[in-house]
Amino acid sequence: MPIEIAGLETLPEVCPGDDLPFLIRTAAAREQQLVDGSVLVAVAQKIVSKAEGAIVDLRKIEPSAMARTWAAAWGKDPRLIEVILTQSRRIVKMDRGVLVTETRNGLVCANSGVDQSNAGGGDLATILPEDPDASAARLRVALGCGAVVVTDTFGRPWREGLVDVAIGVAGLDALDDYRGSADRHGRQLAGTIIAVADQLAAAAGLLMRKRDGCPVVLVRGFRWRAAVGCTRDLIRRPEQDLFR
Amino acid sequence: MPIEIAGLETLPEVCPGDDLPFLIRTAAAREQQLVDGSVLVAVAQKIVSKAEGAIVDLRKIEPSAMARTWAAAWGKDPRLIEVILTQSRRIVKMDRGVLVTETRNGLVCANSGVDQSNAGGGDLATILPEDPDASAARLRVALGCGAVVVTDTFGRPWREGLVDVAIGVAGLDALDDYRGSADRHGRQLAGTIIAVADQLAAAAGLLMRKRDGCPVVLVRGFRWRAAVGCTRDLIRRPEQDLFR
Repeated sequence: MPIEIAGLETLPEVCPGDDLPFLIRTAAAREQQLVDGSVLVAVAQKIVSKAEGAIVDLRKIEPSAMARTWAAAWGKDPRLIEVILTQSRRIVKMDRGVLVTETRNGLVCANSGVDQSNAGGGDLATILPEDPDASAARLRVALGCGAVVVTDTFGRPWREGLVDVAIGVAGLDALDDYRGSADRHGRQLAGTIIAVADQLAAAAGLLMRKRDGCPVVLVRGFRWRAAVGCTRDLIRRPEQDLFR
Repeated sequence: MPIEIAGLETLPEVCPGDDLPFLIRTAAAREQQLVDGSVLVAVAQKIVSKAEGAIVDLRKIEPSAMARTWAAAWGKDPRLIEVILTQSRRIVKMDRGVLVTETRNGLVCANSGVDQSNAGGGDLATILPEDPDASAARLRVALGCGAVVVTDTFGRPWREGLVDVAIGVAGLDALDDYRGSADRHGRQLAGTIIAVADQLAAAAGLLMRKRDGCPVVLVRGFRWRAAVGCTRDLIRRPEQDLFR
C-alpha cells in the first residue's frame, strides 16, 4: 500500500493560547480528512511554540556583553543572540557568524531553534517548546491519532539546505533497529538503525514549505513501530559523538 | 493534492550488467504503476551500483599498511578498509573505529559509501556509482519519468540513526531557495534554503528498508522545480563548512 502525505490547507494562523488540537480537528473535518489511530500527524514546531506561548518579545531582552560583542561582529540583533545563548546549555560551534548550540533537551542545531520567521512579526521570536515530546503526547491524545511527530528544519554539516527532523515524538519508536536481522544474502546487518521519525519529518517537510506551506501534515499508510516515543533516542550520546 | 509514495514490490534482485531501467519498467507495468513525466523515481544506490558493476571483490584487494593497522585496532576487515581509503579523497574523521570520508564526488559520509550488505554476499562490497548524477540522468531518460533521485543512507553528527539522502539527482533542483521571499508577516526569509532532494530521498527511504524493502520508489503529486539537477548543489563549499 502506498504512503499518502496530505497537508491541511485551511488551518488558520496560530496564536498564543490557541487550542491547537481543536484548530487541527476543525481544519481536518472541513477538508474531510479523517484523523484516527491509523494516521500519523506531523506538526511544525513553529505552531506548537506559538500555541504554547513559547514566544519571546525582544524588546524585553537585555543583551549580555557576549551577545553584544558577537552581534556587533556579525551584524546580528544582540537581543536575538542573547535569547539564543539563554536557550543553550552548550555552544558546539561559534564561528563566522554561525551559532550551533545544544538545547536544554540535547538537540544540536543552529541558534537553539530560536527563529523570527512567522513568529508574529516585529520584535517577536519563537523558541522551542519546553518539552516537545510532551507537546507531541498531548497532541496525540487530543487528536486521537496514532502518532505525532513535531518537526523543525535543521541544517547539517557538510550539506547545503535545511531538512525537517523530529524534535518531538509520541506513539512511535523514533528509531527502527535492524541490528541482528540479516540481508537478502543472510549477511548480518551490523549497523543499520534507521531514524524513522526523521524520515517521516522530512517527508512531511515536503508540504511544510515556509511560505504558503502546511504546518500540519497527515501521513497515512505507513506502519510505524508503536511505542511511547522519545526524542532522546535520536540524540547521540556524548561518548559516541565524534563531532562534539 | 496529497503526495503518494509507492514502492515497487516485484523488482527482482539486481545483478551486474542488468538493464536497470528495463527491470524497473517491467516491474512498474506488472504492478500497474504508471511512470510518466509527472512521476519522480527514487532509486537506492545499492542497485544502481550493482547494475553498473560498481562492486569490489575483496579477495583481489591488497591492504596497505594503514588499512592493516586500523583494521587490526578496531576488528575490521583490512581489505574493506583498503577499499574505503581508496574511495576517499580526504579523511574527515578517523576515530574510535569510525571512518568519515569525503568521496571523489565531494560527499561526506561513513566509509566512502562502501558497503557489504546486500552486495551479493561473501567477499563482495559495493562502492558508490562513478558519477551518481549521470546515473540518475541515464535512468531518467530511459524511464521517461520526470525526475530521478539516487539515494543512500547516511549517518549524521549529533543524531542517532541513518536517513536517506540524495547522492544523485536528475530533472530537479536539489535545493529550493526561498531567500528573498517573505513570510506571512512580510518578514524576509533570510536563510531558508530547503534540501528538497534530501527530503524526497528520506520520504522514499520510508519504503526502502534494508530487509524486504523496495529499492525503487515512485513519488507522485509533488511539484519539484525542474532543472538539469546537480548533487554538487547539496555539498557545502569548504570555505563555508565549519565541520571540515
